[in-house]
Amino acid sequence: MSSAVTSASKGRFDSDVYAGRLRAAQQAAGRAGLAGLVITPGYDLRYLLGSRAQTFERLTALVLPASGAPTVVVPRLELASLKESAVPELGLAVRDWVDGDDPYRLVADAFTVAAGPPIHTAVTDSMPALHLLPLADVLGAVPILATDVLRRLRMIKDAAEIDALRKAGAAIDRVHARVPEFLVPGRTEADVAADIARAIVDEGHSEVAFIIVGSGPNGADPHHECSDRELAVGDVVVVDIGGPYEPGYNSDSTRTYSIGDPEPEVAQQYSVLQRAQRAAVDAVRPGITAEQVDAVARDVLAAEGLADVFVHRTGHGIGLSVHEEPYIVAGNALPLEVGMAFSVEPGIYFQGRWGARIEDIVVVTPDGAEAVNNRPHELVVVPVG
Amino acid sequence: MSSAVTSASKGRFDSDVYAGRLRAAQQAAGRAGLAGLVITPGYDLRYLLGSRAQTFERLTALVLPASGAPTVVVPRLELASLKESAVPELGLAVRDWVDGDDPYRLVADAFTVAAGPPIHTAVTDSMPALHLLPLADVLGAVPILATDVLRRLRMIKDAAEIDALRKAGAAIDRVHARVPEFLVPGRTEADVAADIARAIVDEGHSEVAFIIVGSGPNGADPHHECSDRELAVGDVVVVDIGGPYEPGYNSDSTRTYSIGDPEPEVAQQYSVLQRAQRAAVDAVRPGITAEQVDAVARDVLAAEGLADVFVHRTGHGIGLSVHEEPYIVAGNALPLEVGMAFSVEPGIYFQGRWGARIEDIVVVTPDGAEAVNNRPHELVVVPVG
Repeated sequence: MSSAVTSASKGRFDSDVYAGRLRAAQQAAGRAGLAGLVITPGYDLRYLLGSRAQTFERLTALVLPASGAPTVVVPRLELASLKESAVPELGLAVRDWVDGDDPYRLVADAFTVAAGPPIHTAVTDSMPALHLLPLADVLGAVPILATDVLRRLRMIKDAAEIDALRKAGAAIDRVHARVPEFLVPGRTEADVAADIARAIVDEGHSEVAFIIVGSGPNGADPHHECSDRELAVGDVVVVDIGGPYEPGYNSDSTRTYSIGDPEPEVAQQYSVLQRAQRAAVDAVRPGITAEQVDAVARDVLAAEGLADVFVHRTGHGIGLSVHEEPYIVAGNALPLEVGMAFSVEPGIYFQGRWGARIEDIVVVTPDGAEAVNNRPHELVVVPVG
Repeated sequence: MSSAVTSASKGRFDSDVYAGRLRAAQQAAGRAGLAGLVITPGYDLRYLLGSRAQTFERLTALVLPASGAPTVVVPRLELASLKESAVPELGLAVRDWVDGDDPYRLVADAFTVAAGPPIHTAVTDSMPALHLLPLADVLGAVPILATDVLRRLRMIKDAAEIDALRKAGAAIDRVHARVPEFLVPGRTEADVAADIARAIVDEGHSEVAFIIVGSGPNGADPHHECSDRELAVGDVVVVDIGGPYEPGYNSDSTRTYSIGDPEPEVAQQYSVLQRAQRAAVDAVRPGITAEQVDAVARDVLAAEGLADVFVHRTGHGIGLSVHEEPYIVAGNALPLEVGMAFSVEPGIYFQGRWGARIEDIVVVTPDGAEAVNNRPHELVVVPVG
């Protein structure tokens, strides 16, 4: 298998995977009429080189001309950060620099050596203004975003990436299996979040990416994180959690809990949500569009008068980044393809009262979807003394 | 005390602190001849509004005209993320938007309403290309960096910020006190890092920012993180750790450990490092320049023939961000002022063999420096069975 992780400590795939990605990105840049791409640390760099470099104030950049040899510009102090990436095995040219040098000039020079002066370049979407503005000055032209060029590459996961998402999904499922024991009346959302943070790491994630514990009225805010609110019997609690799992692919799963038996109205509305989530997952297959999947969830809720309380998109792509393309949202006519991975997470939110959400990560297969999250989808009733 | 944290869960200072910061930033923008600032999520936004918004793909931005009322542009879905910030208490204008709207146009309009069309604007250094490029299109001009305008404000910490740094420092000192028990021969650096990660959170940090466990030859790489290398008797181990402590100010402290008694040469060279670090801390006072402090550490090492093995700057500022100004580095003629906070962290690195570093965070006081880290500075010898 060409893209296996050969060492847990390496934290990346074999270098031939990155060789293929670099070639594909160069070809895409050429097709787009670009001189090439400039990629600073972030998910695109991790995708293209397996590099976890995170430098902010000093420029590290992959200069990827549409034709010719790539160059990595890096502060001398951070040369070692390339060691774990695919750069040494691929034998890429490295131009290091020290304080006092002009690293943006080195980027321009790397293009010139490869294929003449760069006119039209594209930059990774995460490149901070700190680097983009001086780079534009040296290049003599403002770059465009590389998003279009890299979109397809980043969006379609290969077998090893899907395997990584499966492992992350199983790990967060194990955390959800432990959540009921944390949900004790009188404890705060923050107490529960601290327990979950430990469990996320204990169950094999390399770190915590996010934890939402939204109890009672806080569950009605889709982006609530956690607070000092104390849990009480009768609370409905939204728990939306995830984190990266080596080599860096993220989990993201939501289940909703009820402390003690739910009110009949809650149970009834939750059952509609469960149907909506199930219908959307069942609708996923190659060729259906992202917005059609969104509409499937929305239509089930609308048929029961719940259209207005589903206030966000149905899902987002996931991989090295927790939120990436494809977005499962109205207006996105992108047809789904085998290997795309994204969340299906409709929710219902009743301001000042309660909310619920059900979220699985799914991967498009030739004949449908494979869910990497497999905890039961019912409202989880936590027994109270 | 005006800038106390009134609620641990609020995770920020009282809103009058932010009112003062906004006024100061507007005045600084006016002095710089700018129409104003556009600040997307990141440390500048947290500094100016106490907002932890982290949205990436959808634009959230504070539009801060040099004169006139500020406006916050925010996706409707993430309106709730402003709740915990100072925005509601300050009564700032909020312009929310939904998918399909042009949020960059809203930014331009917010300037126009305040003070006419924006010509010269500045953006936070972390604004990603994803937002900066479309914003430049709508504004009709490429913004400059707001770094100069905000530098002094961000660099000089007030009493509450210093208090927050003290608490963070005490917390990481408690972690270092526990490190010897983790350093057992046969365990890997990664095992130790996992223990330290738990201890960082247990001792009160809200999360882990970074963990370096560099044993034996890995200690000679200043930016090594951790690996599967197993600890052995005789290893020198560099442990550089930190994280944010509510309301978000970071700890960062390095101590060096020896598993069993060190070689005499190690002990001797470490003692020079210890003198260098102490001399640099002792040199800190208002009026001395950043580069002079760097030179003090470097000179002590040079006098003992160790100039070439101290391969990085002496320190970096710290606050909401782990690395910020002032940088304690050759070429930085900035005179230190009361309230500046930064690391003093000389190190010595012997490729393929071992390394050592000692790091405290210090705050400039009227008559010198206050260290917020107070663990012993000696090479910590971990007894072996």
